[in-house]
Amino acid sequence: MPVNLCAPDPAALLPVAGVELGWAEAGIRKAARKDLLLVRLADGASVAGVFTGNRFCAAPVLVCREHLAANEGIRALVTNTGNANAGTGASGVADARATCAEVARLLGCVPAQVLPFSTGVIMEPLPVQRLLAGLPHAAQRLAPGNWMEAAEAIMTTDTVPKAASRSVELGGLPIAVTGIAKGAGMIRPNMATMLGFIATDAAVEPKLWRRLTGAIAEASFNRITVDGDTSTNDSLILIATAASGMVPIDTADDPRLATLSGALREVAQQLAQAIVRDGEGATKFIEIRVEGAATAEEASRVAYSIAHSPLVKTAFYASDPNLGRILAAVGNAGVADLDQGCVQLHLNDVWVARDGARHPQYIEEDGQRVMKGAEITVRVELGRGSASSAVWTCDLSHDYVSINADYRS
Amino acid sequence: MPVNLCAPDPAALLPVAGVELGWAEAGIRKAARKDLLLVRLADGASVAGVFTGNRFCAAPVLVCREHLAANEGIRALVTNTGNANAGTGASGVADARATCAEVARLLGCVPAQVLPFSTGVIMEPLPVQRLLAGLPHAAQRLAPGNWMEAAEAIMTTDTVPKAASRSVELGGLPIAVTGIAKGAGMIRPNMATMLGFIATDAAVEPKLWRRLTGAIAEASFNRITVDGDTSTNDSLILIATAASGMVPIDTADDPRLATLSGALREVAQQLAQAIVRDGEGATKFIEIRVEGAATAEEASRVAYSIAHSPLVKTAFYASDPNLGRILAAVGNAGVADLDQGCVQLHLNDVWVARDGARHPQYIEEDGQRVMKGAEITVRVELGRGSASSAVWTCDLSHDYVSINADYRS
Repeated sequence: MPVNLCAPDPAALLPVAGVELGWAEAGIRKAARKDLLLVRLADGASVAGVFTGNRFCAAPVLVCREHLAANEGIRALVTNTGNANAGTGASGVADARATCAEVARLLGCVPAQVLPFSTGVIMEPLPVQRLLAGLPHAAQRLAPGNWMEAAEAIMTTDTVPKAASRSVELGGLPIAVTGIAKGAGMIRPNMATMLGFIATDAAVEPKLWRRLTGAIAEASFNRITVDGDTSTNDSLILIATAASGMVPIDTADDPRLATLSGALREVAQQLAQAIVRDGEGATKFIEIRVEGAATAEEASRVAYSIAHSPLVKTAFYASDPNLGRILAAVGNAGVADLDQGCVQLHLNDVWVARDGARHPQYIEEDGQRVMKGAEITVRVELGRGSASSAVWTCDLSHDYVSINADYRS
Repeated sequence: MPVNLCAPDPAALLPVAGVELGWAEAGIRKAARKDLLLVRLADGASVAGVFTGNRFCAAPVLVCREHLAANEGIRALVTNTGNANAGTGASGVADARATCAEVARLLGCVPAQVLPFSTGVIMEPLPVQRLLAGLPHAAQRLAPGNWMEAAEAIMTTDTVPKAASRSVELGGLPIAVTGIAKGAGMIRPNMATMLGFIATDAAVEPKLWRRLTGAIAEASFNRITVDGDTSTNDSLILIATAASGMVPIDTADDPRLATLSGALREVAQQLAQAIVRDGEGATKFIEIRVEGAATAEEASRVAYSIAHSPLVKTAFYASDPNLGRILAAVGNAGVADLDQGCVQLHLNDVWVARDGARHPQYIEEDGQRVMKGAEITVRVELGRGSASSAVWTCDLSHDYVSINADYRS
């Protein structure tokens, strides 16, 4: 059961001018479920991507990078679930290329204008014939109102489709921002998506758009972790179709950029947090804030050390305020000259550890009260400087083990 | 249930001349269980230690380091379970000092000749009065034949006491090597012990002994991981009492040193592997060998990336040959210029992935057969050089979650 996360209201998902979405049941892994998504983009869209840091990146990631670099103008995205097309060698790359070629044929563009994505089991050959056979069905369904179906079509172990929308006014024009994401396990930053597609009908100059995409990723999908495993396939794509007809934003100091960026960040954070809330086996949503660090990198390192500790995560699952485990995780973050006597630990409103030891007024009942809630903020103050960082994670439950022990069956 | 691990035969645990062990039921956390161990050493022993890399190290670790540096000649070790005396600030250090003072008083030495150790819950005050009250009982029981009871007295979530012995001949003299260890969770290298004490009646010059202790740790307790959490308290102590009366080894090229070192390494590896075999919730014992790396550090990094991946560990638990997860973990090890096309993956005798993709002759039944066994060797060849490394780990099961969700109750 996801933590305070419902399926989005389809009526609240705004169409984005210049984006059409179509899906199919291609039977990639299982019959009778949406497992193929085709997205057609209007000519002239700015498209930028951030991809997995995993060196065993999947074939579609390799092809995406190549097609973005070719700079032919992206016209389509194609995504299959049920198979990651990772650990598949040269034939995997050939399959990803064949997919792009067929999409290009169907939509009347060139293969380098198509970005392919896959998610699912690793190291099994992609059933590319079934995928290709499904594409015409997806193409027939292309329509601007299919965001909800698109969110469903990219789900794997997700229990809830993930989509979000915002509307902003830029220079008097209404502009839509709508995104979808999927992912529930094998989730940690660089990238943690596993897949996220966010589109707006705003017009932004491509180089500026690429820079903005990196910043949005950093503030959202790169702030989450479920199990510390970085997927082979993580991809975040941001699309600005320009179909609203607005005068393009082409300088960083254009005041419209801040407004647009705010809306994009909100959508990206909502989607990223939805991935954690739907984390495999999650029963709690936990924000970990580290403050008083020497650098932001150090703050992140400490936050992730806490977020990745199986002992911390199981204690949250049990609502057991065994909070010394958090101090131990702080000590494991590789901050060589950490002075434990300067460390403060808060759990929501409860001051648990003062100057590295249990606060004299701390009583376990207070810790227990916070631990029993479904939304918990861990705040660690290092006393080393003024940098800070926050990451979002979930607990580690029996269900995480069950889901991952049974994933392929 | 531990993996192929039985309690040692007490008769096989050789007494070590110059070492006496005594225990008590001090009621540190629970009544009626051995939770206090006192070890008395003959005058003139060489004693060296390796301690946790956790910056939130426990009070006894701080005091151990200080007392070893004081160089007064160590005469006693004192260990309590049930409370880690970590995250306890200045009062924790005072408690560790009070413990050493009382041991010194009982045994007629000075406090700087006593090394204190604690293991158990973090961030709770040490019930030092109960500990002090238990010490006379432990002192009364001091005897050379108590190795088995000593192993029992340091257990926490361990299900099996861990002890091992070897006998070697050095220059015609019979020499004993006997050690005990404890630890089952919060286990990863630097140090992974959590506690290990190994003694021999051999005579080795102190500086040489310190160097040997580091090498033994590197080959044993620093090669294991259960959950990737480095404890606040990990300590490995090696003791050479010299009570055999042998002519001391005082140069590195003394041929007796290699014989002694071999026996020490065997005992240390057996104890370290016993910790993994008794890992919290473990159902399988897994050796991960990484070969063909550019450096040994790189090989270790890749091995630990595999060993720490929750997705890999749950797949082993399920006997599910979802082996692409291993490739993903290789890709996550931070080897920036890894060429996935050069990576080979073997599971025992089965060649699973060739040149980064599934081996054409690999069939899932073969993977399944290996995965169903309780002893598994994962072998990864990186194709980058000739360095290699091995680590030992276990799977991640429902019981790991249960044990750590319930640990304090």
